[in-house]
Amino acid sequence: MKKEIPWQDKPKGCSDVIWRYSENPIISRDAIPTSNSIFNSAVVPYNDGFAGVFRCDNKAIQMNIFAGFSHNGIDWKINEEPIVMEAGNTKMIASDYKYDPRVTFIEDRYWITWCNGYFGPTIGIAYTFDFKEFFQCENAFLPFNRNGVLFPEKINGKYAMLSRPSDNGHTPFGDIFISYSPDMKYWGEHRNVMQATPFEASAWQCTKIGAGSVPFVTAEGWLMFYHGVINTCNGFRYAMGAAILDKNSPDQVKYRTKPYLLTPSVTYEQIGDVPNVIFPCATLQDIEQDKVAIYYGAADTVVALAFGRISEIIKFTKENSL
Amino acid sequence: MKKEIPWQDKPKGCSDVIWRYSENPIISRDAIPTSNSIFNSAVVPYNDGFAGVFRCDNKAIQMNIFAGFSHNGIDWKINEEPIVMEAGNTKMIASDYKYDPRVTFIEDRYWITWCNGYFGPTIGIAYTFDFKEFFQCENAFLPFNRNGVLFPEKINGKYAMLSRPSDNGHTPFGDIFISYSPDMKYWGEHRNVMQATPFEASAWQCTKIGAGSVPFVTAEGWLMFYHGVINTCNGFRYAMGAAILDKNSPDQVKYRTKPYLLTPSVTYEQIGDVPNVIFPCATLQDIEQDKVAIYYGAADTVVALAFGRISEIIKFTKENSL
Amino acid sequence: MKKEIPWQDKPKGCSDVIWRYSENPIISRDAIPTSNSIFNSAVVPYNDGFAGVFRCDNKAIQMNIFAGFSHNGIDWKINEEPIVMEAGNTKMIASDYKYDPRVTFIEDRYWITWCNGYFGPTIGIAYTFDFKEFFQCENAFLPFNRNGVLFPEKINGKYAMLSRPSDNGHTPFGDIFISYSPDMKYWGEHRNVMQATPFEASAWQCTKIGAGSVPFVTAEGWLMFYHGVINTCNGFRYAMGAAILDKNSPDQVKYRTKPYLLTPSVTYEQIGDVPNVIFPCATLQDIEQDKVAIYYGAADTVVALAFGRISEIIKFTKENSL
Amino acid sequence: MKKEIPWQDKPKGCSDVIWRYSENPIISRDAIPTSNSIFNSAVVPYNDGFAGVFRCDNKAIQMNIFAGFSHNGIDWKINEEPIVMEAGNTKMIASDYKYDPRVTFIEDRYWITWCNGYFGPTIGIAYTFDFKEFFQCENAFLPFNRNGVLFPEKINGKYAMLSRPSDNGHTPFGDIFISYSPDMKYWGEHRNVMQATPFEASAWQCTKIGAGSVPFVTAEGWLMFYHGVINTCNGFRYAMGAAILDKNSPDQVKYRTKPYLLTPSVTYEQIGDVPNVIFPCATLQDIEQDKVAIYYGAADTVVALAFGRISEIIKFTKENSL
Amino acid sequence: MKKEIPWQDKPKGCSDVIWRYSENPIISRDAIPTSNSIFNSAVVPYNDGFAGVFRCDNKAIQMNIFAGFSHNGIDWKINEEPIVMEAGNTKMIASDYKYDPRVTFIEDRYWITWCNGYFGPTIGIAYTFDFKEFFQCENAFLPFNRNGVLFPEKINGKYAMLSRPSDNGHTPFGDIFISYSPDMKYWGEHRNVMQATPFEASAWQCTKIGAGSVPFVTAEGWLMFYHGVINTCNGFRYAMGAAILDKNSPDQVKYRTKPYLLTPSVTYEQIGDVPNVIFPCATLQDIEQDKVAIYYGAADTVVALAFGRISEIIKFTKENSL
Amino acid sequence: MKKEIPWQDKPKGCSDVIWRYSENPIISRDAIPTSNSIFNSAVVPYNDGFAGVFRCDNKAIQMNIFAGFSHNGIDWKINEEPIVMEAGNTKMIASDYKYDPRVTFIEDRYWITWCNGYFGPTIGIAYTFDFKEFFQCENAFLPFNRNGVLFPEKINGKYAMLSRPSDNGHTPFGDIFISYSPDMKYWGEHRNVMQATPFEASAWQCTKIGAGSVPFVTAEGWLMFYHGVINTCNGFRYAMGAAILDKNSPDQVKYRTKPYLLTPSVTYEQIGDVPNVIFPCATLQDIEQDKVAIYYGAADTVVALAFGRISEIIKFTKENSL
Repeated sequence: MKKEIPWQDKPKGCSDVIWRYSENPIISRDAIPTSNSIFNSAVVPYNDGFAGVFRCDNKAIQMNIFAGFSHNGIDWKINEEPIVMEAGNTKMIASDYKYDPRVTFIEDRYWITWCNGYFGPTIGIAYTFDFKEFFQCENAFLPFNRNGVLFPEKINGKYAMLSRPSDNGHTPFGDIFISYSPDMKYWGEHRNVMQATPFEASAWQCTKIGAGSVPFVTAEGWLMFYHGVINTCNGFRYAMGAAILDKNSPDQVKYRTKPYLLTPSVTYEQIGDVPNVIFPCATLQDIEQDKVAIYYGAADTVVALAFGRISEIIKFTKENSL
Repeated sequence: MKKEIPWQDKPKGCSDVIWRYSENPIISRDAIPTSNSIFNSAVVPYNDGFAGVFRCDNKAIQMNIFAGFSHNGIDWKINEEPIVMEAGNTKMIASDYKYDPRVTFIEDRYWITWCNGYFGPTIGIAYTFDFKEFFQCENAFLPFNRNGVLFPEKINGKYAMLSRPSDNGHTPFGDIFISYSPDMKYWGEHRNVMQATPFEASAWQCTKIGAGSVPFVTAEGWLMFYHGVINTCNGFRYAMGAAILDKNSPDQVKYRTKPYLLTPSVTYEQIGDVPNVIFPCATLQDIEQDKVAIYYGAADTVVALAFGRISEIIKFTKENSL
Repeated sequence: MKKEIPWQDKPKGCSDVIWRYSENPIISRDAIPTSNSIFNSAVVPYNDGFAGVFRCDNKAIQMNIFAGFSHNGIDWKINEEPIVMEAGNTKMIASDYKYDPRVTFIEDRYWITWCNGYFGPTIGIAYTFDFKEFFQCENAFLPFNRNGVLFPEKINGKYAMLSRPSDNGHTPFGDIFISYSPDMKYWGEHRNVMQATPFEASAWQCTKIGAGSVPFVTAEGWLMFYHGVINTCNGFRYAMGAAILDKNSPDQVKYRTKPYLLTPSVTYEQIGDVPNVIFPCATLQDIEQDKVAIYYGAADTVVALAFGRISEIIKFTKENSL
Repeated sequence: MKKEIPWQDKPKGCSDVIWRYSENPIISRDAIPTSNSIFNSAVVPYNDGFAGVFRCDNKAIQMNIFAGFSHNGIDWKINEEPIVMEAGNTKMIASDYKYDPRVTFIEDRYWITWCNGYFGPTIGIAYTFDFKEFFQCENAFLPFNRNGVLFPEKINGKYAMLSRPSDNGHTPFGDIFISYSPDMKYWGEHRNVMQATPFEASAWQCTKIGAGSVPFVTAEGWLMFYHGVINTCNGFRYAMGAAILDKNSPDQVKYRTKPYLLTPSVTYEQIGDVPNVIFPCATLQDIEQDKVAIYYGAADTVVALAFGRISEIIKFTKENSL
Repeated sequence: MKKEIPWQDKPKGCSDVIWRYSENPIISRDAIPTSNSIFNSAVVPYNDGFAGVFRCDNKAIQMNIFAGFSHNGIDWKINEEPIVMEAGNTKMIASDYKYDPRVTFIEDRYWITWCNGYFGPTIGIAYTFDFKEFFQCENAFLPFNRNGVLFPEKINGKYAMLSRPSDNGHTPFGDIFISYSPDMKYWGEHRNVMQATPFEASAWQCTKIGAGSVPFVTAEGWLMFYHGVINTCNGFRYAMGAAILDKNSPDQVKYRTKPYLLTPSVTYEQIGDVPNVIFPCATLQDIEQDKVAIYYGAADTVVALAFGRISEIIKFTKENSL
Repeated sequence: MKKEIPWQDKPKGCSDVIWRYSENPIISRDAIPTSNSIFNSAVVPYNDGFAGVFRCDNKAIQMNIFAGFSHNGIDWKINEEPIVMEAGNTKMIASDYKYDPRVTFIEDRYWITWCNGYFGPTIGIAYTFDFKEFFQCENAFLPFNRNGVLFPEKINGKYAMLSRPSDNGHTPFGDIFISYSPDMKYWGEHRNVMQATPFEASAWQCTKIGAGSVPFVTAEGWLMFYHGVINTCNGFRYAMGAAILDKNSPDQVKYRTKPYLLTPSVTYEQIGDVPNVIFPCATLQDIEQDKVAIYYGAADTVVALAFGRISEIIKFTKENSL
C-alpha cells in the first residue's frame, strides 16, 4: 500500500504556488530536552513511515545531528542523543560540529550529507541502512564548503553532489557547483551550476544561493528547492526558489525561478534566533498525486512544512525563469 | 467643497505629538498580486480624491513604482502594472530600478522623484498631469544619491530639491543637501542643509538622515518630516523627526527635533523584511483644520499612517530643537 | 521582619533552572514620560523596600541613569529626572552619557557603576547613602571599557571590580577582567578572569562576554550571572549564563555554565530596539529561602524578571561547567 | 613664434609608447618651503611660457593649490602662498581643502577644477585670466566626487566635464561620468562614460578609474590620459592608460587601452608618501610635431614628466583597445 | 654526465642558512616584450638543461603562464606566447587566468599545477612531455583554492597534492592541506597538514601559509619551502620557511621552522608591484653535493634565486622547529 | 665632567627644525645574531655613558626587549639575550610579548615601560638599578593599551604616565591620556590630554597619535615628541611632532605642532618591514647646550637618530601650534 505524504490542500483564495502548513511549526525549538533549536533538517520515506536527520543545536549552541522517526511526516520523535558515527570508508571521522543535514536514498542505503567541522566547514558524508548505525566517510571536499546535496541516483555512473563553496564566516558570496565521484571517496569534475544573480535581476538571491532539498526527477528534469540570500541593512534574509536541472547533465540549469516561491512573512519565520530565514532541506513527493511537501528551517529555530503541486511548480518555474 | 484628509483624533491618554492610525497598516504587502511588499510611498490630493505613487517590490525583489488612487486616502487601489515612462526633457530614461518615490504638485503638474538605478542609485525625475502618462526627465544628479524631495513651489525662481548623497551600498553616513535648478534639467548651488548628529546629541539620527515628506509651508517655515538612522549591533534602526526650514532660504534650518517623533514600537514596524524601520515619504495636510496625515513605510514591508496637529508639531519642534 | 524578594514558583512542567516572571516585562519602555526605553537596570534592597538605578534612554536616544523605588521589587516608581551627580572623590565628573548601571552596597553606602562616556565608554563610579544625593568619583579605568561590576565586599582588603575591556564601537571581542583598588580611586592588579569561548565549545558566548549581576556569596563561592554574545549573520544575540568564582581569589573561575541559562525566546526579548537581547544587571536573593530574582534588560527596550533556586543553579553550573 | 613644449626623444632600445623624462622628478617634494609634497598638478601654455596649478600639501598635510610659472615647462617657480579665491558666480566659496587640480583654457579664460572639500570631496571650479586673480564658482556637483576634468571647448554649446563619483573615504569603486552645463553653474545630462574593468579583462584598472589630463582633439577624437587602480594585498596601485572619446559625443568611448601605458616601476613612483602611484593630470601637446608631454604625480610626492608621439599613442590605443 | 644546478658559495661572514644569488634578480620584469612582471615561477631539470613555467602578467595585468628554457638555470629564454592548453583528461579547460605555477616530474611526464580561474581561483592541472604540448586536466578542487603543489612521486599508490583553501579575495587566513587522487581526476582524503601559527609563536606566518616548492626527499623526510604571511598595518608581508614532512605520511609535519629562512630585506624584495614579498615556487637540488637552489618571486615583480646546503637547512629546521 | 650627548650641527642650507644624523641608521636590523629588526627603542644616560632598552624582533617575529650599552650614544652593544624579569611589586609577570620600550630615571632607579602582551597589549612596567637585574611590576592598565610613557619625576606627589588606549588590532583611532599613581601599582585620575586631529586641521596626525619620548622640562613646560598617523590608501604613515604640556598640570597642552617635525622621506624610513614609519621613543638632551638628540624607529626595521635645538623646537611649536 502506498505511503501518504503530509498534505493540506491549497487554502481558498490563495494564489501562491507554495502554501504553508496551517499547524506550523511542526517541530518546536525544545522538542528534545537539550535543544535550543531544531531546524534545517531532512526527512525521507523509511519503512512504513518516515525517518529524518535533524539539526538540533543544544543549549551551549553546539551543532549536531540527530535521527528521528515519524509515522506521518508531521509528528516526529527525535532521538535525545546525537548520531554516533562509526568508521565508514575512512578512519578519519573528526568533526568539530555537524549541521544542516540532507538525506538521500541511493541504491541500497541512505546517505547523509551535512556541514562538517574539520578545520572549517566542509561537506561530511555518512551512510546508514537503518537510521541506527551510521558510517562516516571521507569528507567530500576541502573546506570551506556548505550545503552539500546528493542526487538520489548516479548520473552517468557516478555519484553527483551539489555544494556551495564558501569562506570561513558569514559568507557574503556563493554559487552552487556540482561534483562527481566514482566511489563516494574521491571527487572531481567540478562545474559551476547556478550563480547568485545580479541585484537588478532578482535581488532575493543576489548575495548567495545554496542547494536545498534533494532533487527529484520530473518530466522536465531534476526539480530542486534552493535558498537565496539578500543582504539588507539589517542582515541576511533567506527565501526559497526552485530550479530545474537537466536530467542527464545536471550542471545545465533549464529553468530557475526569478521570483521566490516562499519568503519570510509569518511570525515563526520572521522572529527567532536568526530572524527572516526560510531554509529548505528536504521534500517528500508523490509524483502520481502531483504533491510535494517541503521541509524547511524557519528563523534558525524551528522546522516548518509547506506544500505545492509539482505540476504547478514546474509551470511556474518555466514561466518565471531567470 | 473641501476635501477631507484622513484623520483620527488623538487617543485618550496619549501624550505624544504624533499618533498612529488604529487600522494600520493601510496597505498590506500583497495588495497587488505580484508584490512582495509595498512601502515608502507617496500620495497627493488629486481631483476629488487622492493619487499616489507606490513602491512595490515584486517577488523577485525588483523595485518599481506604481500609480494608485483613493477616494479617502486610506483605501487604495494600486495599478497592477508599474508606471511606464515616456521621454520627458531627455531621451535617456534608463532605469535599472526605481524606489522610494515622492510626489509634488508644482504650478501645473505633478512631479515624481525617486531613487533611480543608473550605474548606481541617483535621483530620477518625472512629471505627470493625470497619473496615467508619465514623462521621465534627466536624472537630477550623478550617482550616488537617494531621498530626493522637491519643494512644492519654486524658491527664488528656481526649483529646489533636497537629497542625500550616498555611496553604493548600505551607506553608513549621510547629510541632507539642497540643490537648485532653473529648468528641472541642470542642477547646482548645492548646499548642506542638515547633518547627521553627534551620537551624544541625538543618537537616533547619528548615522544618517534623509529627507522624507514633501515640505509644506507653515507660519514658521517649511515643515518636513525626515528619517534618522542609528546603527545598532543588530543593524540600522530608522525613526522619524521633523525639521522647519526657513521659508526663503530653505538651506537654513530653523528648528529640528532632537527627540524623534515616531520610532518603531509596534509589530508592523518592528517585524518585516527589514525590521525596525519607519520611513516617512508624504503628508496630506489641512492647514485650516490644523491636521496632518503622515504616510510612512514600515519595516520595508507595508504602508502605515500617522496623524498630528500641525501647531503641536511646530511647538514641539521649536521647544525640543537640537 | 525579613523583606520578601519578588518570587513566583517554577511553572509546572518546566524543566529549566531559570524561569521567567509571568507578568514580564515589569517595566515598560514608556514608564516615564521622556523615555524611549528602560532596560539594563539594577536594584538593591533599600530601607523597607527596594531602590534601583535605571537606564532610561530618552526620545533623543540619549542614555542616562535614573533612581527609582519599589515596595515589592516589581512595581517601580522611577524618577522623571536623571540622577544629578555631585563631586565625590574628584571634581572631574564629566560624562557624555551614562548607561547599564549596577548597584552594590559596601560597608556603609551604595555604590553605582555604569558605562560612562568620557572620550569613549569607560566605567563610572558614584556612591549614595539615600538614592537622593549621588557623589561621582574618578572613573575606574581608561576607555574603552564596559560592564563594570563591583563585588559587594572588599576582597583581601581591597575593592574589587569586574569589567570588560572593549573598543569604541560594537566590540566584536571581549573577556571579563578583575581589578582591585585600595580606595576606589586608583586601580590595579588587573587579571583576566573569564574568556569568550571557542565557537565549538559554547557558541552562545563565543564573541564576547560581560559581567552582569553583582556577585553574591554562596557555599561554592561568588555566584554571578553574565551575558554571552554570538555574532549571527543577522547581528549579535545576547544570552545569559552563570559563573561561580572562588571566594577569596575571584579571578579563579570554579565553574561556568557551558549551556546558557536563558536565551531570547519570548516576544519581548526577541523584538524591540535591539532584537534578541537578554542582559542581566542585578539580582535580589534570599539565601535562606534559596531564591534568586534576576533583573535583566530585554531587547534593549524593557526590564524583565526571572527566578531560580540558588541551589539548583549551583548544581547545574557545576554539572554543566565548561 | 611657436612655443616649444618639453621634449626628449625616445631612448634607444625603448619599445614603449610612453617614456619618462630622464631628469625626473621635475618638481621635488620641498620645492617651496612649506611643502611636504608637490604632485598631481596641472599646466597650460601661458603667455610666452607656461603656467600651472600645483597641489602642494603642507607639512600639516593640509591640501591646497598654488599657482606656478615656467618658461620651458620643466623648471617651475611655484608661488609660496596658495591661491586666494575671490567670489566668481557665487558667494559660497567654502573649501575645507583643495587638491588634484586641472587647468583648461576655454574661450577667454583659464578654468581650474579641483577636488574641493565641502562636507566631503566634490568638484570645485574657478577661473582666472592671469593666474593672479582667481574667481571661485559654484561647486559642480554634490559630494562625493573627485577628478573633475573640463573639456577645452564647449560641446554642442555646453560646457562638459568628466568626473568620478566617489564615497567619503579611499573609494574602492569608481567609473568616469560626463556632465554638461549651459553656464558653469548648473549641471545635468549626466552619462556614464567608462567603467572600471572586470578583473580578468584588465586588472590594472579593475578597482576604479579616473579622468586625468584635459582631453585634446585628435583625428580620432578626444585623447585623454586617465588613471586606473588595482587593489593589491598591500594597497592601491595607480597606473596610466589612454582613452579616445568621440569628438561630438564624448560619452562614447571609441578606444581605450587594455594595457596600461605607464605603471610604477622607477623609484620615485614606487617609493614616497603613497607608494606605487602614477597620476596624470595634464598634458602639453604639439599636434604638428606629433608630440605630447604628460605631467603626472608620482607616489603622491613629486611631479614627473613623460613623453610620447601622439600618432603612436593613438595607434597603440586602437590596436590594444578593450 | 651530471647536470650542474645553479650555485654560489655562501658569502664570507654570512651566518644565515640561506643566501641570495649575488646577481639577483635573475629574470627582470620585462624579460619578454609583453610582460609587466615575471615572478612566482617554477623550474625543473629538462634534457641537458632546465625548463620552467613562468608567471608573466602582461601589461593589462592579465595573468598567464609561459614555458621557458635555460642551459644553466640562471639565464632563461621565456617564450613570448603563453602556453596553449589542449584537452587532457577533460574537455572542460576553461580558465579565466593562470598564475603561480609549479612543475613536477612524476613517472613519465611533467605535471604543472597553478592557480586557475574558474568561477574563482582553484587548482589547475596539466601535463607535458616536452614543454611544447600541454594537456589540461580537470581542476583538482572546487574554488576557492591556491598554491597547489604536487609531490614528485605517488604516496601509497596515489598522487598527492598540497593546497591552501582560500576565499575569493586577499584571503586573511589559510592552512596547508593535503589531498590524494588515484588518477589525477578525482581527489579526496583531505587532511590538514600545517596551520598558520599563533601570533605569539611565530608572527611571520601567523596570517596564512602556503606550500611553495615541490617537496623533495631527504633522510628526514620531504623537505619543502613554503611562504608565511603577516598582516602589518601596511599590508601583507611574505617570508619563507621550511618544513619537513613524514616520508610516508606527509600529512605529518616532523619539523617546521619557527624563524623564517628568508624575509624581504633587499631592494628587489621590498619594492615592486607588491612590496615585501618572497614567494618560493621551486627548487633545484643536488643531493650528493648537498646543494639546493631556491627560485622565488620577489615583490610580485621579478624572479630571484637563493642557495643553501640541504644538510644545514635540515639541521636548522630540526633545531628551530615550532 | 659633563657627558656629551650625540650631536651633529644642522646641515648647511637646511631650514628644518629637526635634522637627521648623517650616518643613519645607527643600529641595523641584524645588530644581534637573532634579530630580524631593531627599532622603537629607548636610551638614557647611564654611568659614564648610556644604556638603553631595545626592541629586537627575532626571526620568528617574536617581540622582546633587550638591554644595551654605549659610550657615546651612537655605537651600541646590545645584549644577545632578552631581558629576564624578576618579580617586582607583583608575582604576576606574565608576558606574551614585549615591544616599544621607554626608559625613565625617577628618584633612585630606572623605570621601563613597554607594550606588554597580557590577553592583549597593555602597559608593562619594570625597574632596574643597573640594567642587569630587572624587576617587573603590575601592568599599569587593563588591555588594550600602547605607548605608555612615564614622566621623569612625580607630579604633585604621584607618578604620571601617558598612554594611548587602543583596540586589539591595527587600531584606527587613538588619543593620548594621562594617568596617575601613588605607588606604581594602582592607577587612576585618567585624563584625556591630546586628541587625534580633524583631517582638515592636520592630516598627518588625524588617525591616531601616541606618546613618544619621555617628556623633559623646559622653560615652557614638558617637551615631548610624539607620533601621528594618517591612513592612506596604502596603509598607515607615521610622522613625528612635538607637544609642550603644562609643567604642573600635564594634562593641559600648551602647544602642539600642527606641522610634523619629521616625516618618512629617506630610504630607511620609507622602505623596510613596515614602510613609511618614524616612531620616536627617546631623547637625550643637554639643556645648557640647547641640544636634543631624538632616537626613533624607522620603517619598523632600524634605529635612527635626529637632532635639534631645544629653543628652536619650542619656538617652532609655539608659532605653529594647533
